[in-house]
Amino acid sequence: MSSRAAYVRGTKGMRGYSTLLCLVSVLGASVAHAQPTAEARPNILLILVDNLGYGELGSYGGGVLRGAPTPRLDLLATESLRLTNFNVESQCTPSRSALLTGRFAIRSGTSRVVRGGRPSGLVQWEVTLAEVLSAQGYATGHYGKWHLGDVEDRFPTHQGFDEWYGIPNTSNLSMYTSQPGFDPDVAPTPSIMEGRRGEPSRKVATFDLETRRLIDTEATRRAVGFMERNAQAGRPFFAYVPLTAVHYPTLPHPSFAGKTKNGDFADSVVEMDAHVGELLDALKRLKLEANTIVIFASDNGPEDLLPWRGSAGPWSGSYFTAMEGSLRAPFIIRWPGRIPHGATSNEIVHEVDLFTTLAGFVGANIPQDRMIDGVDQRDFFLGSRDRSAREGFPCYVGDTLAGAKWRNWKVHFVWQEYKYDPVQTLGVTRVFNLLDDPRERHDISSAEGSWALFPLYKLVDEFQASLRKEPPIPVGTPDPYVPGK
Amino acid sequence: MSSRAAYVRGTKGMRGYSTLLCLVSVLGASVAHAQPTAEARPNILLILVDNLGYGELGSYGGGVLRGAPTPRLDLLATESLRLTNFNVESQCTPSRSALLTGRFAIRSGTSRVVRGGRPSGLVQWEVTLAEVLSAQGYATGHYGKWHLGDVEDRFPTHQGFDEWYGIPNTSNLSMYTSQPGFDPDVAPTPSIMEGRRGEPSRKVATFDLETRRLIDTEATRRAVGFMERNAQAGRPFFAYVPLTAVHYPTLPHPSFAGKTKNGDFADSVVEMDAHVGELLDALKRLKLEANTIVIFASDNGPEDLLPWRGSAGPWSGSYFTAMEGSLRAPFIIRWPGRIPHGATSNEIVHEVDLFTTLAGFVGANIPQDRMIDGVDQRDFFLGSRDRSAREGFPCYVGDTLAGAKWRNWKVHFVWQEYKYDPVQTLGVTRVFNLLDDPRERHDISSAEGSWALFPLYKLVDEFQASLRKEPPIPVGTPDPYVPGK
Repeated sequence: MSSRAAYVRGTKGMRGYSTLLCLVSVLGASVAHAQPTAEARPNILLILVDNLGYGELGSYGGGVLRGAPTPRLDLLATESLRLTNFNVESQCTPSRSALLTGRFAIRSGTSRVVRGGRPSGLVQWEVTLAEVLSAQGYATGHYGKWHLGDVEDRFPTHQGFDEWYGIPNTSNLSMYTSQPGFDPDVAPTPSIMEGRRGEPSRKVATFDLETRRLIDTEATRRAVGFMERNAQAGRPFFAYVPLTAVHYPTLPHPSFAGKTKNGDFADSVVEMDAHVGELLDALKRLKLEANTIVIFASDNGPEDLLPWRGSAGPWSGSYFTAMEGSLRAPFIIRWPGRIPHGATSNEIVHEVDLFTTLAGFVGANIPQDRMIDGVDQRDFFLGSRDRSAREGFPCYVGDTLAGAKWRNWKVHFVWQEYKYDPVQTLGVTRVFNLLDDPRERHDISSAEGSWALFPLYKLVDEFQASLRKEPPIPVGTPDPYVPGK
Repeated sequence: MSSRAAYVRGTKGMRGYSTLLCLVSVLGASVAHAQPTAEARPNILLILVDNLGYGELGSYGGGVLRGAPTPRLDLLATESLRLTNFNVESQCTPSRSALLTGRFAIRSGTSRVVRGGRPSGLVQWEVTLAEVLSAQGYATGHYGKWHLGDVEDRFPTHQGFDEWYGIPNTSNLSMYTSQPGFDPDVAPTPSIMEGRRGEPSRKVATFDLETRRLIDTEATRRAVGFMERNAQAGRPFFAYVPLTAVHYPTLPHPSFAGKTKNGDFADSVVEMDAHVGELLDALKRLKLEANTIVIFASDNGPEDLLPWRGSAGPWSGSYFTAMEGSLRAPFIIRWPGRIPHGATSNEIVHEVDLFTTLAGFVGANIPQDRMIDGVDQRDFFLGSRDRSAREGFPCYVGDTLAGAKWRNWKVHFVWQEYKYDPVQTLGVTRVFNLLDDPRERHDISSAEGSWALFPLYKLVDEFQASLRKEPPIPVGTPDPYVPGK
């Protein structure tokens, strides 16, 4: 196996980078970044939204065009680095797992959406960004939707968060209690929960169509309170705010209902933008803007419940596929004075990179005893290098290797444009030039793009070899998980 | 017939507007705009590009994402009002005709692309923006692609331009001389031409695959020279610069070839952006920025010659259809201190409105003896009103009424997504909510959108009544055309 995977850029003339397979710490001696001092450790505010397609925000070509202006996020984009090729896993659970562990979900038994009420989601053996930051003395809080396990021992407080509030599973569950025939004796009544580390989590309300409207307001309020408390205590914090907007059923807070006159979806987008504004206002009020890394991203592409309203902008497809509309999500990162502002880049970054990169920014070590897929994007984010440290990645949809990306090229091994389309087996793989053909309409595998299959297959071969070297954790593995046992 | 068409907004509480059918001058006593003084008459630089889809410019979600950064146009957008719902006719000839006459092309015998070497295109009876401005003392120049007639008596100098340079027909003709079997005895050798008012136009070069690469550079150079001459003479000018970029065959100037390393299309987009920059730099150098209205637009949606590279961004479809990808074009308008800068609006504007609006800005009268479809958008452009003066329009593709738009709703009477798809007859019309469903995937005509057929049909009925009242000029009508004869 190559010690440098095809999807990690060469480092010719550059400082050394953590690569996928050589398992070298990003903080190894060859990395020249200054170690942050305890005083200067940046806070991290990571806002993740749900099923928000690439095309919704004003800065991504949406906003007024979708009947839902997003002025706070548009202003944030002008203060930030904005990526047009930020890639995610194709579903909620895999995406949140990849984001928090720096590992593609196929490795960690989280390649499919959590099934409720059983051991499902992240095993405790996995090391999350919250655990890494907590070990560095960070206060860690979770406010919103978890979706990485919904039974005791699988909650955020078992994965490095000091406290949490929100829903353990997903927003669809808010419909249970009003659906015909629902019987709480055969399926649990969904709950909004809260918890503190070292204590069992507890239910604070039934999660239904009324409380579904309120949850993001409360999550934002609690996240602001968490930042205030830690600002007063002078303690660096990691505020993870996975808002439930704009997942189906998209029911806005009563104070936003009807605001746009363009329907619930637009109202919810506007509400989401306002919550982002509240979080940013809190940072300003607390005089923490300069020393806080703010990230805004979506977990995956838009829904495909017509007439549901997600838009992937210029890309085809929906979540649960390997289309660009599934893989590309909005991504905005602000760190005043450090990360270039008003910049846009089409370099490939994957959400797994945030684990490695943020750990690097705060001087934390990442695990040495397992495959970490995230690469260190510090130089790219800081603008000292205009190329990403990544050239590609494999794309799994559920347990299926559905495709791969490398530079501007993409291969599909199966074909599915929208979630509810059948998955078609392909006799011949399809290859697209994504610069030329954002919609993935014109297969070039047998014509001008034939050569691109070489680096694409190399990437896939190396990734699959890494799975053989370190076998994936099966979906549904109960705790405790012990590797090799 | 109603005296107020459904596609013109009501004026409740607003100043009076010129409407389609009441045929009142936009400068009637009810319009409160101050008349520009002769000294203050703004220059107009109208840059029209060819087949540039909605999704190409950085400010429209393209740029780096398409491998073709457009920094000059992106900066211009921040200084301008940018529209996300600027609508055009679906083909080159109809679009240029509508733009210059303020009349939908179905009226003026220009609903189809000009056939070469015969009376085709605009009859001299039509009154163009150049004629209107010329009558006001403006110097008028045309530099680029005309496509409104390619025989003597149908050139720009017969439609109000003092001088012209460029190609009378379209860019495809540059391929003639290198195509197998071409015989100059049976089809004319295409030419680049120039002309001055009152003189026959003359050929300056063969238009072939070599000169096709050079023409936009020369058109820009001549347009700059025209602006310089008139700046020195203190004469207001109308510089119409219909660049040939990015129409097939998209062959960049040799100094741009290979510049992006992303192919000819991206190189040509970058070249186009640079030419826009040259024109803007000239305005700055001549100290004419403040008193010049700069408009950048595209004539129609992207091409559909796969693997050709046009992108309509979030919209479906290509030119030659009634899909949004055909109708919506980029549109940027700058007038420092007058038109709001950094603003974006999703209000419906149609290219025919420019005729009426620009005439209004310079204090010119528009014809009273014919149907003028353009409505006065001065208040909207100037920001004194946040709604467009237009609510919709009918959409003809060739001679076929293919659809109509009203507010956020769209009806299709036939179905064709891409130019080379067959035109399907529809048993039931299809209606889309364009805010909810930019891709036009989910017909709501029989469900939640049924009511929208009322205003859509009202609009169409009124337009068709206006065609019965003033019958269209047949395509291919020879000069002299006399109405009613």
